Amino acid sequence: MDEFELIERFFAARARARDDVRVGIGDDAAVTRIDANAELVIATDSLVEGTHFPAGAPAHALGHRCLAVNLSDLAAMGAQPLWCTLALSLPDGSAQWVDEFSAGFMALADTYDTALVGGDTVRGPLAMTVTVHGRVAPGAAIRRDGAAPGQAIYVTGCTGQAAAGLALMSRDEERPAPETSQLVERFWYPAPRVGEGRALSGIATAMIDISDGLHVDASRLLRASGVGAQLDLGSIRVAAAAVEQFGRDRALEFALLGGDDYELCFTVPTEREVELRRVGATWDCGITCIGRTESDLQVTWTEGGRVHAIDDTSFRHFAEAGK
Amino acid sequence: MDEFELIERFFAARARARDDVRVGIGDDAAVTRIDANAELVIATDSLVEGTHFPAGAPAHALGHRCLAVNLSDLAAMGAQPLWCTLALSLPDGSAQWVDEFSAGFMALADTYDTALVGGDTVRGPLAMTVTVHGRVAPGAAIRRDGAAPGQAIYVTGCTGQAAAGLALMSRDEERPAPETSQLVERFWYPAPRVGEGRALSGIATAMIDISDGLHVDASRLLRASGVGAQLDLGSIRVAAAAVEQFGRDRALEFALLGGDDYELCFTVPTEREVELRRVGATWDCGITCIGRTESDLQVTWTEGGRVHAIDDTSFRHFAEAGK
Repeated sequence: MDEFELIERFFAARARARDDVRVGIGDDAAVTRIDANAELVIATDSLVEGTHFPAGAPAHALGHRCLAVNLSDLAAMGAQPLWCTLALSLPDGSAQWVDEFSAGFMALADTYDTALVGGDTVRGPLAMTVTVHGRVAPGAAIRRDGAAPGQAIYVTGCTGQAAAGLALMSRDEERPAPETSQLVERFWYPAPRVGEGRALSGIATAMIDISDGLHVDASRLLRASGVGAQLDLGSIRVAAAAVEQFGRDRALEFALLGGDDYELCFTVPTEREVELRRVGATWDCGITCIGRTESDLQVTWTEGGRVHAIDDTSFRHFAEAGK
Repeated sequence: MDEFELIERFFAARARARDDVRVGIGDDAAVTRIDANAELVIATDSLVEGTHFPAGAPAHALGHRCLAVNLSDLAAMGAQPLWCTLALSLPDGSAQWVDEFSAGFMALADTYDTALVGGDTVRGPLAMTVTVHGRVAPGAAIRRDGAAPGQAIYVTGCTGQAAAGLALMSRDEERPAPETSQLVERFWYPAPRVGEGRALSGIATAMIDISDGLHVDASRLLRASGVGAQLDLGSIRVAAAAVEQFGRDRALEFALLGGDDYELCFTVPTEREVELRRVGATWDCGITCIGRTESDLQVTWTEGGRVHAIDDTSFRHFAEAGK
């Protein structure tokens, strides 16, 4: 647990209980009761220049990305997006920047029929905080603490592309434009799995979106659910472009430990796997089974029968262990 | 209209319409339909170090203030607070700072039975964005565009104290502690008029909270409603402490043009003024009638029959005109 998770626990300990709060601090989003037929799902995420994106980031991509990471939280709860607000902190008010930023934001909002209902624009260091609101049927939100032992663990899409894209931008002297590379594009334009998340309602027992890396976020889900897992390194999808640019070991490292992908990781009971495969077969992103939950709390990655030790926080450590 | 209002218009022009959005961008808060019996009111506001508060601001006060300014937006719609989220950008994670900040935040949240349901904590320049959610009966939200000609204009409390407090902090070499002065206290600990706002449902025809100064915010309400007003400078309450510290002219200037008070400005039809006075008589903050709306779009301040020209943006201009 990092210092920021500790801070969140700190707030959670002081948070007032209300009868209408079904899920409070600690999941991808909060769930509140609004009437007999629906629950409201609320999530908020900030992007800050220098922390979440480099200085000089393209405005259109930032507009997309600050909404995408929030829609991903709704996706991880199986919720239908409804409305959002945007708090934008700007060092100056360049009309062209705001034009491009809002075009990127609004294009994604339109894709998911999400209305921008309010916001605040202030003078300050470049940063954006979006709050999104979605809807689920009562009790239908897919929390991260619902997994039980003996369930299959799946991931949508192909993780590690965003991290490879970020590494490409750091490596290459001239920063590649978003459109020059599929990997860089994936960093700037993550695709929230909104439709996939909603379709998993009634199928998945627990779900989380992968913002900090497959290993870290899968471990969060498992810990929240009070289970462990046997996970298969050999099953992890790696992007051909990442292998081409960085070699297989580093591509796998990105897939396992790189953040910013916003794919979904979820658990499914054995009896629902047929339905999952039927549903998942229609998705462009695809799904991959990476292992199974266990009652033993350990999270173990194996490849060809050999156990690999993975450190939550260290790329380097994994790079050494994985070789 | 300042550059940030222009940016908000820019987003508003691109905002997607949804049938369930009753009030979108441009009021104190958004109003969305959630079921047949209630509407959801959503507001978001950011505070950034160096823009909204000086460096070295007391953490407890910041915790209070970032929630208070948002609850004030709910108050200005006549809404009952329900839930909030907090996005906190921190340059470092000092445990004592977070302890004090969260104590200030949670004490106010408890006062208004507002549950903190989620958030995000990130590394970055000191800033906080809060999103608040409240409830109103269908159609009961008090917008800023509902005033008609011939209605009385009222203000809660006594404006200008926060601006006087801020001026005191700038003037005095040693920054006064929040508790040393009523004026400084008002800057750090604004009191959102939540109960007052809710009680005005069915009485007020339009309402706004005063964050940028009585003249500016009253003018916004009048402009949104398509009316003008005759306003009486002599009716404006000034704080005795502000007169004592700065003299009568400057105290009046603070009351008229100083921001950060978070009092409510609202309009009331003549036939409801008896009810308003009955309700308002129970409020500690008191209410003051400052003038009446007119069909003529001018906003005119008079004192003893003499007209004063007021520039929206300039303290100096008013100080000269007011002498």
